[in-house]
Amino acid sequence: MARYVHKYGGTSVGSVERIDAVAARVRRFRDAGHDVVVVVSAMSGETNRLDALGRQVAKRPNPREMDVLLAAGEQISIALVAMALEEHGCRARSYLGSQVAILTDDAHQKARIEHIDTQRLEADLAAGIVPVIAGFQGVDTNGDITTLGRGGSDTSAVAVAVALGVAECQIYTDVDGVYTADPRIVENAARLSAVTFEEMLELASLGSKVLHPRSVEFAGKYGVPVRVLSSFEDGPGTLITTEESKMEKPVVAGIAHSRDEAKVTMIGVPDVPGVASKILGPIAEANIEVDMIVQNVGADDTTDFTFTVKREDYERALELLEPVRQRLGARQLTGDNRIVKVSVVGVGMRSHAGVATRMFDALAAESINIQMISTSEIKISVVVAERYLELAVRSIHSAFGLEGSVRTET
Amino acid sequence: MARYVHKYGGTSVGSVERIDAVAARVRRFRDAGHDVVVVVSAMSGETNRLDALGRQVAKRPNPREMDVLLAAGEQISIALVAMALEEHGCRARSYLGSQVAILTDDAHQKARIEHIDTQRLEADLAAGIVPVIAGFQGVDTNGDITTLGRGGSDTSAVAVAVALGVAECQIYTDVDGVYTADPRIVENAARLSAVTFEEMLELASLGSKVLHPRSVEFAGKYGVPVRVLSSFEDGPGTLITTEESKMEKPVVAGIAHSRDEAKVTMIGVPDVPGVASKILGPIAEANIEVDMIVQNVGADDTTDFTFTVKREDYERALELLEPVRQRLGARQLTGDNRIVKVSVVGVGMRSHAGVATRMFDALAAESINIQMISTSEIKISVVVAERYLELAVRSIHSAFGLEGSVRTET
Repeated sequence: MARYVHKYGGTSVGSVERIDAVAARVRRFRDAGHDVVVVVSAMSGETNRLDALGRQVAKRPNPREMDVLLAAGEQISIALVAMALEEHGCRARSYLGSQVAILTDDAHQKARIEHIDTQRLEADLAAGIVPVIAGFQGVDTNGDITTLGRGGSDTSAVAVAVALGVAECQIYTDVDGVYTADPRIVENAARLSAVTFEEMLELASLGSKVLHPRSVEFAGKYGVPVRVLSSFEDGPGTLITTEESKMEKPVVAGIAHSRDEAKVTMIGVPDVPGVASKILGPIAEANIEVDMIVQNVGADDTTDFTFTVKREDYERALELLEPVRQRLGARQLTGDNRIVKVSVVGVGMRSHAGVATRMFDALAAESINIQMISTSEIKISVVVAERYLELAVRSIHSAFGLEGSVRTET
Repeated sequence: MARYVHKYGGTSVGSVERIDAVAARVRRFRDAGHDVVVVVSAMSGETNRLDALGRQVAKRPNPREMDVLLAAGEQISIALVAMALEEHGCRARSYLGSQVAILTDDAHQKARIEHIDTQRLEADLAAGIVPVIAGFQGVDTNGDITTLGRGGSDTSAVAVAVALGVAECQIYTDVDGVYTADPRIVENAARLSAVTFEEMLELASLGSKVLHPRSVEFAGKYGVPVRVLSSFEDGPGTLITTEESKMEKPVVAGIAHSRDEAKVTMIGVPDVPGVASKILGPIAEANIEVDMIVQNVGADDTTDFTFTVKREDYERALELLEPVRQRLGARQLTGDNRIVKVSVVGVGMRSHAGVATRMFDALAAESINIQMISTSEIKISVVVAERYLELAVRSIHSAFGLEGSVRTET
């Protein structure tokens, strides 16, 4: 008898039949004596449909209204899942972000959770009722609807798991776990039985698309075990947990990649202190996330400044920086939105030299030019032209001998 | 410079193009110096889509959850309309029922508005912002979402109009006004320039489908002028207002009909006091609306008791009454859901005898059997078999000479 959060993604609630299967699984957990709190995403396709409607109606949709629009997606699925649970003889009650309440800041479309009230949830659990909570959405102190950004439902689930102190936060998706690389690119990629929060953070933020990075950060910070599972078939999935000595640690856990990248370069910037903040200040103010930052020392008194942003923010970033370029007297503003990022991730590389060399060698052997490099304790990322993505991932995966290597829990 | 409520129905916000047209019209009113508050329905088809999803997920969907589900429809349209207004250079802000707040009782799916807060709306109007309010939905004292039932957006619009004391509540629809009969049935039906609240109440509740009856009741009670207009073409529409001497009054304003009818009959009920309340009590408790009620005195010590309900409530009513039949020792429970109601409506008939006779003669001339009769000061309704609907409406329309007769305002 334990307490679980079940989070069901868009494909897991993508049809009437899938919703019925969700209700049946939750019912099985209840019958086994467990308490379950369900967090759901919008039905697959729904968020995109709403997003497209908004963009057809307005060129630059008002962010507050965009949140109202998108939040309707999860509202539909919580109602349907709660109904289905009742149909399966399981008492249930749906909650919008504003009803729980899931309190956030007021950064529309990219809000952060500040507090979750657990009073109604605890009361429901005590009464044998399954709370069904809308992921992705919250409410700010003005009572306005906010959303956490794409993939934010995972963050909602982990935040609820933390607030309620559950045994495990189970994330049901359309994949059966975390792999050493994207199986659509690397045919013999292997499922990992376990990864650390740190590794998962890099794998997620670098584009593994299994879990939203903020959710992993959250889970790691509070030490809530998270398990990624398939909602279509039974299986152990991948457990994301703290690093334990029991865990076998190959040097490298997996190869992540991200297509969602663009780079912006300002050429010929006068090389004086404060330039970086003058360039990145307006970007941060516009809530655009910056990932890699590289500054090259130039031959003359100028420098070239390059950074990467999400591809959707590319044109906005260029627009914002043109007046900055003029003010700074920089020579040119340029960019490229046909780039990708490929990364090697693994806690083991902390204590192993030569990982970077092996990665660069693998790319060089395929004549793939490296445009940017960024390193951390547990990952090395490179930016390459988009057309090299598959080749780069495959050659690196092979260079580290990850084929079929399942890292086990015990 | 006046203050208006604009209510846009499902077809008026049924596409990106239609929403753009709505924004353009509201902008024109603003440019003319008027204050406008917009109330919108869900995009056409959306409520039906959501309703169908709910009914696929659960045989008897939980009413609380059904309200959460359906309310998503209006949430989508307020966001889109507010965005479109901003795109047209018109400051706007969307409000859910819970955000205004539109406070209702807790009768899910059939809630009644109890109070509307005007503070945020007045503040917006003072600041030149157009509030865009979700029709059809409200919030109860528990913070749960409620809905007002189908067509409830009209009621929302009138309630907002009353709360804000506007000059006119304009209801934009896919028809250009109220007609002497359904033009799809009677080819030469004529548009009425004006009708009284009382007439409109009968015309609406009897199936004219232009306005929700509760909205007309509300408007009449508080004397808010309502105008039904087409959102597709310009025109004067039909003004619904208090009876004025200036208004020409033909005896009969129009012929209404309703297909949405079913009758339930309990045969051989012991003829003792309290029988009616024993039969109708459980129906009322289940929130099923009863319309016509007829009790025939029987030859023996028993009586036959017949009443009509909406067709969607027919099977539920039969289910509820079977145990009542057994307790009362009544002989048989029967019913018919292939019936329709046809009504003659007009304030003029108060002072004119012979209206009933002329109506019954018209039906007799076509050999249409009358199953039930009900009368009020301004209407006479009959129940007939569904297959006679068109024939009945046409023959009565013609018997009262309504072809091309436009009642004028001045």
